[in-house]
Amino acid sequence: MQNINEDTITQAVLASMAGCRDERLRRIMTSLVQYLHLFARDVELTEDEWFKAIQFLTDVGHITDDKRQEFILLSDTLGLSTLVTSQNNKKPPACTEATVFGPFFVEDAPEYDCGDDIANGAQGETCFVQGRVVGLDGSPIAGALLDVWQSDEDGFYDVQAQLQPGEAPQYRARAKLRSGPDGRFHFRSILAEAYPIPHDGPVGRMLAATGRHPWRPAHLHFMIQAPRYETLITHVFRNGDKYLDSDVVFGVRSTLIADWNRHEAGIAPDGTRMERPFYTLDYDFILNPAAATQ
Amino acid sequence: MQNINEDTITQAVLASMAGCRDERLRRIMTSLVQYLHLFARDVELTEDEWFKAIQFLTDVGHITDDKRQEFILLSDTLGLSTLVTSQNNKKPPACTEATVFGPFFVEDAPEYDCGDDIANGAQGETCFVQGRVVGLDGSPIAGALLDVWQSDEDGFYDVQAQLQPGEAPQYRARAKLRSGPDGRFHFRSILAEAYPIPHDGPVGRMLAATGRHPWRPAHLHFMIQAPRYETLITHVFRNGDKYLDSDVVFGVRSTLIADWNRHEAGIAPDGTRMERPFYTLDYDFILNPAAATQ
Repeated sequence: MQNINEDTITQAVLASMAGCRDERLRRIMTSLVQYLHLFARDVELTEDEWFKAIQFLTDVGHITDDKRQEFILLSDTLGLSTLVTSQNNKKPPACTEATVFGPFFVEDAPEYDCGDDIANGAQGETCFVQGRVVGLDGSPIAGALLDVWQSDEDGFYDVQAQLQPGEAPQYRARAKLRSGPDGRFHFRSILAEAYPIPHDGPVGRMLAATGRHPWRPAHLHFMIQAPRYETLITHVFRNGDKYLDSDVVFGVRSTLIADWNRHEAGIAPDGTRMERPFYTLDYDFILNPAAATQ
Repeated sequence: MQNINEDTITQAVLASMAGCRDERLRRIMTSLVQYLHLFARDVELTEDEWFKAIQFLTDVGHITDDKRQEFILLSDTLGLSTLVTSQNNKKPPACTEATVFGPFFVEDAPEYDCGDDIANGAQGETCFVQGRVVGLDGSPIAGALLDVWQSDEDGFYDVQAQLQPGEAPQYRARAKLRSGPDGRFHFRSILAEAYPIPHDGPVGRMLAATGRHPWRPAHLHFMIQAPRYETLITHVFRNGDKYLDSDVVFGVRSTLIADWNRHEAGIAPDGTRMERPFYTLDYDFILNPAAATQ
């Protein structure tokens, strides 16, 4: 293992992992090393470029904290997230499609009952959302756990808020809800708006340098879990958004586009008298049975 | 750009960079995206594995600071550093070979005169190092700037020291020196010893999981700069070291292996009377003319 050169280094690294007992890990690392080396050879990566890459990854690491996940943004903007989502979510065409997870999910969102206003102070035009969670045969899935999260009218998620020292974070426009016995859910929130992904960091610099805009079309995130069904991680996208054909994270699927209908001031679906115009969204989710029950 | 799937995502990402005006960057990003996607397809990366990779990179970023560069360690241990070094340092066979830079260089090492003891308190057996910096024809290169750095007898570099609050960092076994009119340099330091790379972080976990040890054979780092010559970044490795054939960063080149000669107590090369045994190392460096002057 002396005098390794550009032609022998790949084999040397693979040989060094001969003692790896985890077959899957060895398979992944073998492939990773091979493609990483193919890349460096293909572009004849220079030492300066290598060092810039080290600095870029360091910046990505340093801006990442418990509220900002720049590595996920990087994966999203390089199309890796959509690739991984696609190859792991093959299901019958009738099922609701999955899309990217994104960096703004949190585990411990507050629990609400159906009908509640989940905005919790997030600014935006009022929107009433309703739908059903059903199986492939249309039968209702009762008690499904829905995680919902979205940005406000300025395009910011609650977790992006700049807190004052001592100020406790507030979850806004983010909820855990359960579908009723008929599979129905409904809640009040705010209108989804297009927004740029956080682009004041290294991923933003990469987008600017490669001539890309940082925008995502307006969408509402859902993660839906129910026993004996595959977990669905997806968005509903807002019809008519100008970024539907250039989503910076490549997440749009035409089956996930829905109309947010605007209504003049009057009676809302839940009976509330609305003094201002409001929106409604109806969308049903069709879950795929888990593999073991198919 | 809707309904992108695992077969169309790569082309979609490349198309999104159509507006990139930096030809070289576009070439690099195009290749990177292609090979990154090939890797994910090849191993059929799962969503769990993707998330573990995100967490791993996050850990690499968070342990990296101004004294520890875990991304360089990762590049080194995956053979990328040796590959990049090899493909960028092709030179006449008579020239001293380059090897990996490593993560422990610092820009502002203290300046010493030839003959000084650069250990500055670093613990280890005394070693007197001397040699010449010459061109391909053997002619001396006067005034070459040599950066030298090494670990102590416990395998730690000065920058790895755990400081007490308020304690100023001390550079030890690290120096900038200049060759004399005859191209000669000499200094006093300590004996180089084999050591494990820092393995209490994510790279250490990767090595353990893949059945690899973290050791590097004993070596002394040099970076040598002189006008009209290519900068040489290399090590001198200690003959007889048990890790010469399994260097965790794949850096060993047989032409860079030299004898550290042990001497009983007595008169050192610089005339000092030594009460204990000491070592000497002689090594000459042959620099390659810079491209513009060839």
